[in-house]
Amino acid sequence: MKKIEVVQNILEANESIAARNQELLDKHKTFTLNIMSSPGAGKTSLILQTIARLKDRLGIAVIEGDVASTVDAEKVKDEAMEVVQINTRNMPESCSLIAAMIELALKDLPLEKIDLLLIENVGNLICPAEFALGEHKRIVISSLPEGDDKPVKYPVIFAGADAVIINKTDLLPYVDFDIPTFRRSVEGLNPDIRLFEASCKTGAGIESWCSWLLGEIKGYNRKAARPRR
Amino acid sequence: MKKIEVVQNILEANESIAARNQELLDKHKTFTLNIMSSPGAGKTSLILQTIARLKDRLGIAVIEGDVASTVDAEKVKDEAMEVVQINTRNMPESCSLIAAMIELALKDLPLEKIDLLLIENVGNLICPAEFALGEHKRIVISSLPEGDDKPVKYPVIFAGADAVIINKTDLLPYVDFDIPTFRRSVEGLNPDIRLFEASCKTGAGIESWCSWLLGEIKGYNRKAARPRR
Repeated sequence: MKKIEVVQNILEANESIAARNQELLDKHKTFTLNIMSSPGAGKTSLILQTIARLKDRLGIAVIEGDVASTVDAEKVKDEAMEVVQINTRNMPESCSLIAAMIELALKDLPLEKIDLLLIENVGNLICPAEFALGEHKRIVISSLPEGDDKPVKYPVIFAGADAVIINKTDLLPYVDFDIPTFRRSVEGLNPDIRLFEASCKTGAGIESWCSWLLGEIKGYNRKAARPRR
Repeated sequence: MKKIEVVQNILEANESIAARNQELLDKHKTFTLNIMSSPGAGKTSLILQTIARLKDRLGIAVIEGDVASTVDAEKVKDEAMEVVQINTRNMPESCSLIAAMIELALKDLPLEKIDLLLIENVGNLICPAEFALGEHKRIVISSLPEGDDKPVKYPVIFAGADAVIINKTDLLPYVDFDIPTFRRSVEGLNPDIRLFEASCKTGAGIESWCSWLLGEIKGYNRKAARPRR
C-alpha cells in the first residue's frame, strides 16, 4: 500500500503549492486558464486565436507545457507579451504540468503587467485532471476527429472543467461526430459547464468564446476589487 | 528524493511482471501487440480492420484498456474470439495499462487458442511509453488531424515503437499535415521503424499493414519452433 500513500502525498503537496500560486496570481490580478486536451486538439491554435482577439485590451502571457520541444512556444512568442516553456520530459511527473513547475515559471513572468495568463498543459486527457496548478478556470478542448465518445472514456477531466470547446467544426462533413451526443455526455457529467463550438482554423465561434472569457475576467476583477472581510 | 525512488521501483516491478507475461505468451505462441495512440486516433478502428482481414486465418483476442467505459469492448466483442476490458480509473496508474493488469487479463483468456493478441492501451502518448506489458511489438497510431509535429513533442513513444501507422489519410485534403515531414521526424528518432499510411475508415493501406503483421507472426512462430539451446 506504500505506493498509493506516496501518490496521495504528491497530490496533497501539489494542492498546497497550487493554492500558493493562486494567491500570487490574485495579488497581481492575473486571471489564469489551465488549457487541457488530447495531443493535437488545438490548444496552441486556441491560444493564438485568443491572443489575436484580445491583445489590444489585455496584457497576455503564456506558459507552454510540453514533454519535449519548444515547437509551441516558437509559434506563440511573437504574439504574447511573454512566453515561458516548460519541458516535463525528465521530471518525475512527465505526463502533466504540476503546480511546482508553474511556481517556477511564475518567477519568470512580470505578473504586474499580465491580466490574462494562458497555461497550455501537456497533451493528455488523463493526468492533467489530477493536478491543480493555481488556475482560475479549467478549459478542455475536444476536437471532432477524436470522436464524440471522449467524455464517456475520459470522464474525470470533463467533470472538472469549467468550459469545453468543441474544436475543428470545419471538419464536421468529413468525420463521424454527433455534436448533440457529445453535448449530452458532457452535460451529464457536469451540468454547469459552458460549451462552445469553434474552428480555430477558420475563426468560427472564437468571438463567442472570447466574449465569455472577457465576462469572466470582468467578474474576477470586480471580486478582487471588493475589500476583504 | 523518496518520490523518484518509488517511481523507479514501480518501473522495475513492472519490467519483471512484463517478462513473466511474455514467457506465458511465448509458451502458447500468442503473438502480442501493444497498440498506443492519442485519444481518438483510431486504435479500435485498426483492431476492427485487422480482425476483419485476418480472422479466417488466426485466432484473435483483444484486451481493451480504458480509463472508464466499455465503449470499445462493445464494438469489438462480436468480431474477436475473446475480449477482456480493463478500466484503469481507480488503479494507481490510471494513465497507462501496466503489466500487472495484463497479467490478470491473461488469466481470463484461452491462450492456447489465440495466435494474435491485440492490446489496446489507454489513449495517451506519454505514460504508455514507460510501461512494458509483455508484448512482442509496439505499435503507435498517429492520425492526420493531430498534426505532423507529434514525434517532436512526444519523442519517447515514437523512439520505442516497432511500427507507426499514419491513420485518417482520407482527411489529407482538409488538414495541415505533411507526410514527408512526419516520416523524417519519426525516422530521425528511430531509423529501423516501419511506417504505414492507412485510413481505417476507407480501408486504404490496411492490406499492407496486415501483410507486414502476418510476416512478423510467421517469423515469431519459426523462432518459437527452434529448439532452445
